[in-house]
Amino acid sequence: MSEVKTVDVLIIGAGPAGLALANWFRNSNINVLLVDKKAVPTRRGKAEGLKSTTNEIFDSYGIGPQIAAESWRLEEIAIWGQKKDGGESGIEREQLIQDKVEELGKVRETMLQQSRVEYHMQQNLLGHKNITIQYDTQPVEVKIDESSLHSEDEVYPVEVRLVKTQVESEGASNILENSTPHTANGDAEEVEERIRAKYIVGCDGAHSWLRKQLQVQLEGDLTDSVFGVVDLIPKSNFPDLRRVCYLRASTGTILLVPRSNKEVRLYIPVESGSSLSDPKDLTFDRIISAARKIMSTYTLEVGSVSWWSAYRVGQRVGSHFSRHNERAFLVGDAVHTHSPKAGQGMNTSIQDAYNLGWKLRLVLQQRDKTQLLDSMAASKLLATYESERRPVAQDLISFDRGYLKLFAAPSAQFDTEFLRAMKFTTGLSIRYPPSCAVQLPRGVETAEQLGPSLLKADLVPGKRLPDFQAVYQADGITAWIHRRLQATGSFRVIVFAGDIATHKHLSTNVQKLGEYLADSEDGLGALTAGGEAAPVEVLIVHSADRDKVELLDLHEVFRPWSDSEGYDYWRVLADAESVHEGHGRVYERLEIDPEKGRTLVVRPDGYIGAVLDVDDFEGLGEYFKELGLLSK
Amino acid sequence: MSEVKTVDVLIIGAGPAGLALANWFRNSNINVLLVDKKAVPTRRGKAEGLKSTTNEIFDSYGIGPQIAAESWRLEEIAIWGQKKDGGESGIEREQLIQDKVEELGKVRETMLQQSRVEYHMQQNLLGHKNITIQYDTQPVEVKIDESSLHSEDEVYPVEVRLVKTQVESEGASNILENSTPHTANGDAEEVEERIRAKYIVGCDGAHSWLRKQLQVQLEGDLTDSVFGVVDLIPKSNFPDLRRVCYLRASTGTILLVPRSNKEVRLYIPVESGSSLSDPKDLTFDRIISAARKIMSTYTLEVGSVSWWSAYRVGQRVGSHFSRHNERAFLVGDAVHTHSPKAGQGMNTSIQDAYNLGWKLRLVLQQRDKTQLLDSMAASKLLATYESERRPVAQDLISFDRGYLKLFAAPSAQFDTEFLRAMKFTTGLSIRYPPSCAVQLPRGVETAEQLGPSLLKADLVPGKRLPDFQAVYQADGITAWIHRRLQATGSFRVIVFAGDIATHKHLSTNVQKLGEYLADSEDGLGALTAGGEAAPVEVLIVHSADRDKVELLDLHEVFRPWSDSEGYDYWRVLADAESVHEGHGRVYERLEIDPEKGRTLVVRPDGYIGAVLDVDDFEGLGEYFKELGLLSK
Repeated sequence: MSEVKTVDVLIIGAGPAGLALANWFRNSNINVLLVDKKAVPTRRGKAEGLKSTTNEIFDSYGIGPQIAAESWRLEEIAIWGQKKDGGESGIEREQLIQDKVEELGKVRETMLQQSRVEYHMQQNLLGHKNITIQYDTQPVEVKIDESSLHSEDEVYPVEVRLVKTQVESEGASNILENSTPHTANGDAEEVEERIRAKYIVGCDGAHSWLRKQLQVQLEGDLTDSVFGVVDLIPKSNFPDLRRVCYLRASTGTILLVPRSNKEVRLYIPVESGSSLSDPKDLTFDRIISAARKIMSTYTLEVGSVSWWSAYRVGQRVGSHFSRHNERAFLVGDAVHTHSPKAGQGMNTSIQDAYNLGWKLRLVLQQRDKTQLLDSMAASKLLATYESERRPVAQDLISFDRGYLKLFAAPSAQFDTEFLRAMKFTTGLSIRYPPSCAVQLPRGVETAEQLGPSLLKADLVPGKRLPDFQAVYQADGITAWIHRRLQATGSFRVIVFAGDIATHKHLSTNVQKLGEYLADSEDGLGALTAGGEAAPVEVLIVHSADRDKVELLDLHEVFRPWSDSEGYDYWRVLADAESVHEGHGRVYERLEIDPEKGRTLVVRPDGYIGAVLDVDDFEGLGEYFKELGLLSK
Repeated sequence: MSEVKTVDVLIIGAGPAGLALANWFRNSNINVLLVDKKAVPTRRGKAEGLKSTTNEIFDSYGIGPQIAAESWRLEEIAIWGQKKDGGESGIEREQLIQDKVEELGKVRETMLQQSRVEYHMQQNLLGHKNITIQYDTQPVEVKIDESSLHSEDEVYPVEVRLVKTQVESEGASNILENSTPHTANGDAEEVEERIRAKYIVGCDGAHSWLRKQLQVQLEGDLTDSVFGVVDLIPKSNFPDLRRVCYLRASTGTILLVPRSNKEVRLYIPVESGSSLSDPKDLTFDRIISAARKIMSTYTLEVGSVSWWSAYRVGQRVGSHFSRHNERAFLVGDAVHTHSPKAGQGMNTSIQDAYNLGWKLRLVLQQRDKTQLLDSMAASKLLATYESERRPVAQDLISFDRGYLKLFAAPSAQFDTEFLRAMKFTTGLSIRYPPSCAVQLPRGVETAEQLGPSLLKADLVPGKRLPDFQAVYQADGITAWIHRRLQATGSFRVIVFAGDIATHKHLSTNVQKLGEYLADSEDGLGALTAGGEAAPVEVLIVHSADRDKVELLDLHEVFRPWSDSEGYDYWRVLADAESVHEGHGRVYERLEIDPEKGRTLVVRPDGYIGAVLDVDDFEGLGEYFKELGLLSK
């Protein structure tokens, strides 16, 4: 038996969830070990669709451009139905829908195969010596020391035994996703090591080993829906092979999604009562023959097939997302499963991980050898992972249930429901409940009481900050805010300062606010000092004429100097016309009065923590006191 | 003495020019050896500005997105002058200019340091086994066998002796660029090899070894202008540190260019007659002290300095760009030098290489073991490298002379001249003269006779195809044409087919044109068949309602099938509204009548080879006959 190694965070599973979680710990001193029973990273694609909210996460990890360069966009969705003209059989194009959500202001969905998404997230970890990925490794035993869970000292209550393992290669082409989990057999245990960790996170997929160890139940059921999935190059005269198509014929339905390399993916549900309702009975030929029947009148010859599979859809949510006083967590497919139709699997897994990561980082981060949060505040913050993400998973299941029905049994409401679904799946309707990290203004009980302009603009604590385009004061370069808000672990105070060139009271406000933000006695100075490592970064978005504002006239907290790096020129933005990309109209879109302004606290994950008046310094302090970052 | 190796192309120098040239040979069977006397790739930046025409080249090499992701844009240029208010000394901002050329329709210039540009071009060669880069190697002798130059057989008339070499490291911080060329000393010759090549290309910079061997003279002179250049992090209250600034004070001028990592670069010319007119006398302290004087009233403290240098500007053009019956070529700084002010060095070098590369590829390419061009046609095509690029270099020198004067001695015309210069430096005014590769229509003697609409739209043989945005018929995805036109070595026939849904004569035209293009007896079939390796690729840009056009109704030459790859869906484009990016208005911008259409022959380098009526099949055939790709 080898020595016991210690790590801060042990992550089980290096798929999209595990890699997304690990990316939060770049540029920190937090030790992370990521283990995966696979021998090598995933090669074959499974999930592919990336919602704009997921792409914003990649932007914050600095890998947005690389991923965007390889992705392609979904621009159009075609709805096909049974020919209405009585005599004729076959299907016809009923509708061509633009894949666009107006209020989003940008591309809603792009496509990239899972293996490439994983590749970029993995590459992004290279050179970060605090983060290790170990393939070919799986846990076989976990013990959690209940006695030390509430200790104020640095403790490693989680102990895990890892073994080297050989699993079946991915070569077999008919993996039945939900019926033959990869498990190691006893003989393969060659090397063994013991790890002690402060936290353990299960990102180990639908057959999660950790979920079983934590005795977390999946609530819900396997549905009757069996799906056949095929990736192939079709030889077909069907005219919409490069559009997402929903084909609904009397003989069944197909979801067709274009892939790279001229391939398309076909999802074909098989209903209960059919002889094919056991995935094991579903052969490739039967899937293709079902597809041919549905497409009828059009030809469908098979060019080449890169992958196919069959599985039964489960719609289940874990009873708990965290256990053992927030020392053990479950993320992504490990705590919820649903149909692949809405393209939510990979997106939700990454978003779960993104929600948890910054909280663990904040809890583990030290400044001057002291934890930023005490153990009580830490537990409180970590508990918001479950209180925020479990309802999302539950909503997703109810949505999925309806969506699956909608798709399987066409109805007159299809189009309306489909458009509503497009907004839902983009994640625009998520709102996290009030907590230490999501604070409503004093005297406001529910978000609905915030008033119409905040609600209309979606400036609501618990909602994702709406992305917007502004222009840097210093150089006129265009910034999209979520690309600007890199995942450093910092909270942001974004001051919408208004027209500070015209209104004296506003420039006075900003000066006073600057003093408060820099004041280490009575203000936020302890949190804003220290450059990029500071727990709070301060940004301004003003609405004044850019020519009338000089960067160096503003308080130094808005353009801090470092001897090695010079000024930070990129904390002051203007709601102004960009040379090449038009006007972002931020104040208009966010319903902010340029004579009054507005201050937002934005969490490290880009969600709004608090919405305040510009002169409400006390409210600003309150947020960080409540969270535990500032002593009361 | 080792054995003699043979290669098709030997490139001396792996800087921007050599790497850009080598990139043309990806996905071919042409053997290329690139040697560089440096021990490792460049680390420190020299040139940085990338014009849009250069970025289009990166797009065609498939590395545009990666380079764009790392680059930043120049959005604004500030002109500073001596304070006009009599009493006050110091400088004031006179003008803020948007760095934008309206007719370009996109970003004019981006910034990325040379080492990163080289990195991406070099990475793009990995995995192409026909291309080898050998560092730490330099040529010491070249012999060219005159007797075999005109042979029809496969010959290797160039013989070069290479030695392994150790040169001074780049560590010294005050390299005097134009006075201390890197040369190997005799002792360092350790390993020696002999290479025989079909072609040799000198991309070996201002002190070109090959230029001397070829006895090519640089015509022109060293100017009186000595420049000091400093890359530093400034501690300064000067408000435009993140804009390109032209500072003109009574005490001198500065060109200030923002760099990455909060650095700025200062170019400071020292005039003749000054005590500093010998670059060897120009110390770092004297440069900074000159800068302080010019900026006066503003502070300038030096944070950290990453590089500085001093040099005398030469404005010279080589007497020849190719020698020995087009077997030896000189590219970039090896045949022309000028001041760095207009940011033309790296851009022109890459564009020289881009002009030469496809010609060499075409000449060396074989189909069914036969050269595509006979030796006469090959020489004729290769001779256009000099006839096209030498005038560009000469124009650049005259421009530079004026620009340098303009900058050194401020005049009242500064702003007008400056705006004109912005267009010139973007490369929008280049027009290659008529040749086998640039053909004017029958009966037209000079481009001026083409008529106002072609001239206005810049659809002129010898000019770069104006970039435009259209939408793929198959999937609605937006395409910028230069990103679509990958550097495969293929010519493109782009058929602006007009409104083929409304006008019967147009759809008939397109069908007949399709037949001609596919006809291997009397048409272009021999050139269009063979998928991506075909010498000619056919594209359509129609202006019809996209809903009324079905891809599969068009002639197969416009959507060819391959058993392994399926249909090629991306040869048919529409001048239509994009879901996310507006309408490209291609026909309007290019002044093409949707009832008539227009056909363009576009060379592999994106320049227009011929402009034709849609039904002028004969003219289309004529172009390729004249070039030698089709027998007369």
